[in-house]
Amino acid sequence: MNNMIDNKERFQKQINFLIEIDKVKSIFRRTRIFNNKRYENDAEHGWHMSLMALILAEYSNEKIDICKVIKMALIHDLVEIDAGDTFLYADNQTEKIMNERKCAERIFGLLPEDQYKEIMGLWEEFEAKETFEAKFAGSMDRLGPIMQNFYDNGHAWKKHNITSDKVLKVNKQIQNGSEELWEYAKSLIEKSIEKGNLENA
Amino acid sequence: MNNMIDNKERFQKQINFLIEIDKVKSIFRRTRIFNNKRYENDAEHGWHMSLMALILAEYSNEKIDICKVIKMALIHDLVEIDAGDTFLYADNQTEKIMNERKCAERIFGLLPEDQYKEIMGLWEEFEAKETFEAKFAGSMDRLGPIMQNFYDNGHAWKKHNITSDKVLKVNKQIQNGSEELWEYAKSLIEKSIEKGNLENA
Repeated sequence: MNNMIDNKERFQKQINFLIEIDKVKSIFRRTRIFNNKRYENDAEHGWHMSLMALILAEYSNEKIDICKVIKMALIHDLVEIDAGDTFLYADNQTEKIMNERKCAERIFGLLPEDQYKEIMGLWEEFEAKETFEAKFAGSMDRLGPIMQNFYDNGHAWKKHNITSDKVLKVNKQIQNGSEELWEYAKSLIEKSIEKGNLENA
Repeated sequence: MNNMIDNKERFQKQINFLIEIDKVKSIFRRTRIFNNKRYENDAEHGWHMSLMALILAEYSNEKIDICKVIKMALIHDLVEIDAGDTFLYADNQTEKIMNERKCAERIFGLLPEDQYKEIMGLWEEFEAKETFEAKFAGSMDRLGPIMQNFYDNGHAWKKHNITSDKVLKVNKQIQNGSEELWEYAKSLIEKSIEKGNLENA
């Protein structure tokens, strides 16, 4: 147990961080929530992605530390507070990475040094997609929007003129975390094409 | 690794659960988010509570399994999908518990049996407030709204005519998870009284 009275500076840094990250509730995404025609924000997305990971963990290609996956899900989009949400299908992915790195330094930098290292480490691991946990977290991050689009008659795909070849290319990495969930994702994509909710190309 | 192809029924139950719980994004609370005058919903609250637990774990009175605390934070308010949000200071707490139990049976009951038991077990443990993890999760659940009210000039307290004696009584259980964070909470309550944002009684 740490003593807050003896280290007020440390505690104040933690509180400042917790208030700052709340801003992610105002960063809106391209997809809408399942039961309402309202766009989803990053905090809601982080929450739902955490629960997807918890419930679908058994489909991971490899044995994973689910706790680490959930932590990644909770923090992975904090970097959008300064950088904003970049649409998965946008062309400026390199610029996005640079902006997000700057934002990570600023926001995680609000924390005491040891916690800065922990959270920055989690974010870097998620971004690198090399560990089994990062791969599975990445699968959850991609599968969620495919499900949202499927159940929302292809709303974001149609609105932004996204064709099936692009959806398949960008989301193929789901298989790196879970071959089985990639099969499921592909079935949703195929059904969306059949229904006329995703342009076949 | 479970085989989805061989057990489609199990997988469909998991997907149905993940879509149903999304409804918690439309359950709104009495407190507003930190950086915007908008009311918070239960999904956002679950996300922020998880991060509070992760960052403030060192102040727990006892050594805790933080992964379990986070899981409790993620699922603790799903029971409000049918029951709605009951204000912390409302009188009908017994009715609330009965409604929430019914909702827990229905929503967690969408899951395959093994996962039903796991999530129901987590929720019951959280509600009972007997384990160190449940006590600390409970502290996070109470501390968040005190911080929100403090930084929002006592918005929810004023709007619902809540006086300081009630705030102290209802939130005293924070000390069961963390004596230190209860000291912090009391300092915010005292400052709110001084500022005229909480009626002294």
